[in-house]
Amino acid sequence: MSASLKQPQVITCKAAVAWGAGEPLVVQEVEVSPPQAEEIRIKVVCTSLCRSDITAWEIQPIFPRIFGHEASGIVESVGPGVTEFKEGDHVLTVFIGECKLCRQCRSGKSNTCEVLGLERRGVMHSDQRTRFSIKGKPVYHYCAVSSFSEYTVVHSGCAVKVSSIAPLEKICLLSCGLAAGLGAAWNVADISEGSTVVIFGLGTVGLSVAQGARLRGASRIIGVDTNSEKGQKAKAFGVTEFLNPNDFNEPIQQVIKRITDGGADYSFECIGDTGMITTALQSCCDGWGLTVTLGVPKAKPEVAAHYGLLLTGRTLKGSLFGRWKPKSDLPSLVDRYLKKEIMVDEFITHNLSFEDINQAFNLMKEGECLRCVIHMPK
Amino acid sequence: MSASLKQPQVITCKAAVAWGAGEPLVVQEVEVSPPQAEEIRIKVVCTSLCRSDITAWEIQPIFPRIFGHEASGIVESVGPGVTEFKEGDHVLTVFIGECKLCRQCRSGKSNTCEVLGLERRGVMHSDQRTRFSIKGKPVYHYCAVSSFSEYTVVHSGCAVKVSSIAPLEKICLLSCGLAAGLGAAWNVADISEGSTVVIFGLGTVGLSVAQGARLRGASRIIGVDTNSEKGQKAKAFGVTEFLNPNDFNEPIQQVIKRITDGGADYSFECIGDTGMITTALQSCCDGWGLTVTLGVPKAKPEVAAHYGLLLTGRTLKGSLFGRWKPKSDLPSLVDRYLKKEIMVDEFITHNLSFEDINQAFNLMKEGECLRCVIHMPK
Repeated sequence: MSASLKQPQVITCKAAVAWGAGEPLVVQEVEVSPPQAEEIRIKVVCTSLCRSDITAWEIQPIFPRIFGHEASGIVESVGPGVTEFKEGDHVLTVFIGECKLCRQCRSGKSNTCEVLGLERRGVMHSDQRTRFSIKGKPVYHYCAVSSFSEYTVVHSGCAVKVSSIAPLEKICLLSCGLAAGLGAAWNVADISEGSTVVIFGLGTVGLSVAQGARLRGASRIIGVDTNSEKGQKAKAFGVTEFLNPNDFNEPIQQVIKRITDGGADYSFECIGDTGMITTALQSCCDGWGLTVTLGVPKAKPEVAAHYGLLLTGRTLKGSLFGRWKPKSDLPSLVDRYLKKEIMVDEFITHNLSFEDINQAFNLMKEGECLRCVIHMPK
Repeated sequence: MSASLKQPQVITCKAAVAWGAGEPLVVQEVEVSPPQAEEIRIKVVCTSLCRSDITAWEIQPIFPRIFGHEASGIVESVGPGVTEFKEGDHVLTVFIGECKLCRQCRSGKSNTCEVLGLERRGVMHSDQRTRFSIKGKPVYHYCAVSSFSEYTVVHSGCAVKVSSIAPLEKICLLSCGLAAGLGAAWNVADISEGSTVVIFGLGTVGLSVAQGARLRGASRIIGVDTNSEKGQKAKAFGVTEFLNPNDFNEPIQQVIKRITDGGADYSFECIGDTGMITTALQSCCDGWGLTVTLGVPKAKPEVAAHYGLLLTGRTLKGSLFGRWKPKSDLPSLVDRYLKKEIMVDEFITHNLSFEDINQAFNLMKEGECLRCVIHMPK
């Protein structure tokens, strides 16, 4: 067989296409181009729905588009110049890549790659074009991943090779939300033993922060959510006390300051609400209180805080993907899962087939799930 | 002589009394009570004018009042229960005290004493009353110090015993502004060798940050001020490049990002302008950029920042008195001055007699000085 015969061809497969803001996805046929230079084409095995898929679907103007960024899969083909991957490799996709060459990648302190950072325009990093089309018309990408498709093309810097013995239907969760929470607790906040932690928002990200805090030996892990059902479920992940702001006549930050004798050591905003970032800052203590913001706000992008909160010793920090460098760090996180050092399976509340993907959107909008894993056709 | 005859008596002496917001001080006689339990009475030797004295004098409503908080002196008498000090001890005053017992003092990470923290009401911590009066009517304190008086009474937790060989007419500067800047650079930012630093505001605090950055081996120290004369003088303190925002048609944060290839490693707001805190955050780099805010804003107390600045890896931190624990840390700072390891004398641009104290206010309001040292009558 000559080399030319091995060239990847266009694949026609099913994808869940979003045609307008908030409109149900349509599972239909799309064409997926061969991977270009430094790209790989992946057969998606499982993809879980993350809150930021929904936020983007609700408010971003780029359509038609294929959402999905938290996924696992198997390399189907590689483009010119790719030596890191070969057909059959098991991979996780990542919404921020790691080029390993830029100032940010070379620093030990950052994961905000200058080359493969957040892609917001729905195109590939290399040529600003799409690899998806329907009858020749472009269909846009999301976050450089677009995993709501049987096949997708990503930059080779936006995929991470993982152990082939790890169950792809579970570890897809480590591709975004679960890793984001653990990294915020470990890499960004660096939670110390015996400390008091407050977590605003008990979805997958917040509960993953709770897990990270528990594994660091935090003595109090206070979970805050307006949905009291989440309070019960949260205990399995490390939350020791639950507060529903609706149960109090005073602002929740006052409650927290009172029960913690002046404020928590750490607070985490895992909702995506800039007003709640202020509340989180007000909930931590003078001197060394640290607030970490993980959420992507849906409205009002400005964070506001009285300067006195800072002057008296508080710190405000952001956390993007828990400051994990995806290629450098994710494989070892998968290994820790295989050694049962971190919980992953427990975050999966629903397993759905690809045709039922809109049900996953409904479950998440209604706060009925942690993670819905969507299984692609075999 | 019996013990009772040694009891301290009321002292009548000269003080510079502020009678209204922005009105010239009146040097006149006041009565200074004996120190109460856990207090000491100090004969002030030198006091330097700090910008926050002026800010308070311009906007705070409590009058009549004796300002001044950056000072050196000699203990004149001690109140009941004081064992740490005796008559004749050389001291620096401090606007935040150190009780050594509270949660904050016991922590190695904080200097925001819960007992002797910022005193804003113009009274003593212990009984919420004043030790100054004029013909029996109270005259209020400022920041628990009130050094614009020949004698003052402070809580023993708000004074620090220092080496008797240190020149009191110089080391008064270490009582506030100069230490605040050094500590912000060393304790709060922990500036690393070879890094790039941007400083907004080149008064004593900003130049002290520059000195701290230079001593840590920062390779670029960019000073920003709208007064170009300050740019020339700043080089002696470590500033390597000067930018006057009025010289550019684009926002200064864009200039800084351009010349630093993406932003500085550290930025410091030393003006007291919440808008400038946002600018400082925008001026530092993705991934690990750290903004430290030191100033006390005169207006608009809310700091605002787009959440994306945090999410991409920036940190915002406040610094109060450079996170020095006054009693634990100031004596060694004085010793470093005596060993010529840190510059202090160079910040003194004017020496004035107590009668000319209003001239110091004018010099600082007009940006004509770094530190004016006011020498009290001998």
